[in-house]
Amino acid sequence: MAEILIAEHAGFCFGVRRAINLAEESLSTMEPGKELYSMGPLIHNPQEVKRLEEKGLRMLTHEDELSQNSVVLVRSHGIPPQKERELLSKGVRVVDATCPFVKAVHEAVVKLSKEGYFVVLIGEKDHPEVIGTLGYLQECGGRGVVVESRDDLREVLGKDKVGIVAQTTQNEQFFKEVVGEIALWAREVKIINTICNATSERQEDVYQLAPQVDVMIVIGGKNSGNTRRLYQIAKSLNPNSYHIETSEELKKEWFNGVRKVGITAGASTPDWVIQSVVQRVKALTD
Amino acid sequence: MAEILIAEHAGFCFGVRRAINLAEESLSTMEPGKELYSMGPLIHNPQEVKRLEEKGLRMLTHEDELSQNSVVLVRSHGIPPQKERELLSKGVRVVDATCPFVKAVHEAVVKLSKEGYFVVLIGEKDHPEVIGTLGYLQECGGRGVVVESRDDLREVLGKDKVGIVAQTTQNEQFFKEVVGEIALWAREVKIINTICNATSERQEDVYQLAPQVDVMIVIGGKNSGNTRRLYQIAKSLNPNSYHIETSEELKKEWFNGVRKVGITAGASTPDWVIQSVVQRVKALTD
Repeated sequence: MAEILIAEHAGFCFGVRRAINLAEESLSTMEPGKELYSMGPLIHNPQEVKRLEEKGLRMLTHEDELSQNSVVLVRSHGIPPQKERELLSKGVRVVDATCPFVKAVHEAVVKLSKEGYFVVLIGEKDHPEVIGTLGYLQECGGRGVVVESRDDLREVLGKDKVGIVAQTTQNEQFFKEVVGEIALWAREVKIINTICNATSERQEDVYQLAPQVDVMIVIGGKNSGNTRRLYQIAKSLNPNSYHIETSEELKKEWFNGVRKVGITAGASTPDWVIQSVVQRVKALTD
Repeated sequence: MAEILIAEHAGFCFGVRRAINLAEESLSTMEPGKELYSMGPLIHNPQEVKRLEEKGLRMLTHEDELSQNSVVLVRSHGIPPQKERELLSKGVRVVDATCPFVKAVHEAVVKLSKEGYFVVLIGEKDHPEVIGTLGYLQECGGRGVVVESRDDLREVLGKDKVGIVAQTTQNEQFFKEVVGEIALWAREVKIINTICNATSERQEDVYQLAPQVDVMIVIGGKNSGNTRRLYQIAKSLNPNSYHIETSEELKKEWFNGVRKVGITAGASTPDWVIQSVVQRVKALTD
């Protein structure tokens, strides 16, 4: 049996745990006739979403479905303030599970805008957290751009005062590069580092773990940005790295002659998914 | 004869040219009995200093030499404000040739301190420009540290609000790295990029030129920080790079079979020194 090393910081982060607790609490105290909707998958983990759906959580597909009997759960990613007002105007109740670290990004862009900075949000353009944050930037009349790749830096050229924040789960290496680049052009740069601790810790674990194992397994939703970044880091350090959602995806041939297996998981991977991967790796390396 | 490519931005920068003009102007309008002293070599170029000394400029060795008949020329690097007051209190006249870009660094550290930032000055600890800037930081009661190498970053660990400036002639690559690193630790970082344009342009020229020539010659005082950094960049891109002060140091064996020679010069290298190097390279590759 191969030796299995599990990253110290793997799986649920504070914000995700809090959102799930809020969902379970709301479901268990729901008045008769009322229904709890999640706007988009509560977390980027299909297995956990399914578990909550079995407890009664509904996924909102069209806002037309909402009535005064609806309770809407805002997930940890947050939503734009315009969207929140729209929901409230429909008479629905809102349970806000926005991660406090994401709220800090909202506050940071507003603060930077008010201080006259052109805002650079280092993150994924299509990520719900980024869309929510841009809503706050728009709300306060600020100007800015999302930087997802170096190409996006063109929009920052010629800006005199640049304020920088990051999506909470941003890659630290990319953050460093972008910050350094902008600091060379702009006259004045103010940075509020909004990458959350859980993200830094998880990424640092992978930097340590991936090079010392024969195979590195990264568990997490294929649509989870923070998991994809863990996988990118792992792959850059160890070619035998794999990104899976569940233990069923593990392949026997990955483990031929393998002595050490590293395992980590994105912020929205429940512990029971990690445990089932561990068991399956044990069986495959027997 | 080898092809000689001279960097577009080589030699005297604005601040150095201004200091030399101020020195020559002061010398030519000096009242009888008065003497012009420079505090330290006016520029980091022994040949140019010698030329000015022949015109009457004296190098201050002990401050006891100063009297009410002395005029002190503050060179482009600037001096601490405490030192300026001391000079004025002796009744000497001060001609201030501090480079305006260096004055901007003084203002930046004071501004950042007043805004509550712990100041990081990316530069050389023993460089007169850095010593002058630290005087301004001390004067306003600010706290900070000079970062010359990555080891110095330890002093910045745990600082919550960090303000960053650079010595005007700092290496851009090192500046980027330090800025990126600090932005990952600190909660809030404000950067005022005080690297002067002349420095950026000269460094960019070397990045372009050094890889495309057989031999790269960097001219400038051995005690000139900006020249040493040009040489480090050149050497990292082309192993056949040499740092010289004058054409006498050129060696025949550097040019065996050489077809293309690149030449650049630090901010305090006079044009006549560059021209004499060009002539000597032509002769050696004949």
